[in-house]
Amino acid sequence: MPREITAFSNPLIKRVRLLRDKKHRRDEGLFLAEGLRILTEAREAGRLPEFLFFAGDSGSHPLVEALVEATEAAGGEAIETNADILSKLSGKDNPGAVVGVYPEFETKLIDLDRASAPIWLVAERLRDPGNLGTILRTGDAIGAGGLILVDECVDPFSVEAVRASMGALFTVPVARAPWAEFATWLRSGPGQLVGLSLDTEVDYQAADYATPTFLLTGNEAQGMPDYMAAACDLLVKIPMLGKADSLNAAVATAVMAYEVLNQQRRA
Amino acid sequence: MPREITAFSNPLIKRVRLLRDKKHRRDEGLFLAEGLRILTEAREAGRLPEFLFFAGDSGSHPLVEALVEATEAAGGEAIETNADILSKLSGKDNPGAVVGVYPEFETKLIDLDRASAPIWLVAERLRDPGNLGTILRTGDAIGAGGLILVDECVDPFSVEAVRASMGALFTVPVARAPWAEFATWLRSGPGQLVGLSLDTEVDYQAADYATPTFLLTGNEAQGMPDYMAAACDLLVKIPMLGKADSLNAAVATAVMAYEVLNQQRRA
Repeated sequence: MPREITAFSNPLIKRVRLLRDKKHRRDEGLFLAEGLRILTEAREAGRLPEFLFFAGDSGSHPLVEALVEATEAAGGEAIETNADILSKLSGKDNPGAVVGVYPEFETKLIDLDRASAPIWLVAERLRDPGNLGTILRTGDAIGAGGLILVDECVDPFSVEAVRASMGALFTVPVARAPWAEFATWLRSGPGQLVGLSLDTEVDYQAADYATPTFLLTGNEAQGMPDYMAAACDLLVKIPMLGKADSLNAAVATAVMAYEVLNQQRRA
Repeated sequence: MPREITAFSNPLIKRVRLLRDKKHRRDEGLFLAEGLRILTEAREAGRLPEFLFFAGDSGSHPLVEALVEATEAAGGEAIETNADILSKLSGKDNPGAVVGVYPEFETKLIDLDRASAPIWLVAERLRDPGNLGTILRTGDAIGAGGLILVDECVDPFSVEAVRASMGALFTVPVARAPWAEFATWLRSGPGQLVGLSLDTEVDYQAADYATPTFLLTGNEAQGMPDYMAAACDLLVKIPMLGKADSLNAAVATAVMAYEVLNQQRRA
């Protein structure tokens, strides 16, 4: 039987609100996700929240009911609340019907099975949480084996990244590793490392991609450092016909990833 | 000779800060852009600010000098200030060296020359300013003739949209029109309206695109309404191999746009 919380001063509400902050996420090992679509995606992927907050007037929605039931069955707590509290927790004026507090999870490089998927996404020093989430969402769409975050990237469990991923955070494995560790792991098995670059004449459509392909996207402002570019098996560029010299990092990743997917679909 | 402002209480600083709000932008007919890269892009496109704020310690940077000179030559005012004020104006902890206040501009549908480019981007009820800016940035990269915003879209002059466009707001024409007006204009000349849809079996790579192609992207949450889909000459879908049923709107637009561009490059 869900308990009810409607006071902002409730200690759990205060604690959950702090999870918008990275330091508190790290200390607690918990993160926030919101919205029926994302939480349902999580449930279907076998991820259930420790705390599930739901709007009292949404309790009879079958997807909310399914979430409450699954959360309680897994030992989590379902908490009935109101739109004001949900708004406070999610930071959105129009909150969804549900907010979940999940334990952070992590995939180790060593646990990735590179034979399980023909395309893998790799990003180095990614700064923007929206880009990270969007890349995860694209990763889901193209059937990527996972996203590998190299060196110091933005936190994939930030509210903005989780939101932009539209649930893909729960379905696409995310591993984090320093470059040296990634490079060692990469070369311990088959795989072509393909870097997106502005300093190459190789058109991304003219290249042949091997399986598995590891697509490396560099930092939004600077691109990848020279030593990473040098470590790539192939550098390719996307044609740029306009005034600017680069695409948004999540867009460039998607354009590249679909090219690789399209080549594989034709093969 | 630039005047110097270092007080938060200065009336101009207060006025400029209000431009982060849509109502004030509309009342003043002015908007904010920030960062040397974006302001230089604007200058090269012939757009100069009414007010240019620059950090005192950046005054000797050649691109800042060029901006100050061009702004004053065009009758605008260059104002020396400090990082705190720039941070306040831009809303960023690490502001760039410059913030510009520009007069809003508008392109009318009737002024678009559809023969001038083979690809045009169209978005309906776009909600997210980051998506809008990112689509503009992609539009620049693929040489789009412009972006047509159909029905009630987010403001292209919002700080987030300008930022995400990375300057493309100044180089890619943006027209706004209700659907009926757009549809009438579209059918007054050649052009294929291609809609991105989840409800079609036509693979985006299997379709032939005519010139000019008008790529229609629907609202982020709902896609396009049925009557718009029915008005399209062609509906295509991007393959989705994962759990989710859609891509981010800016990503989907870019994947489609590069497919059209690639077909044209092969032709």
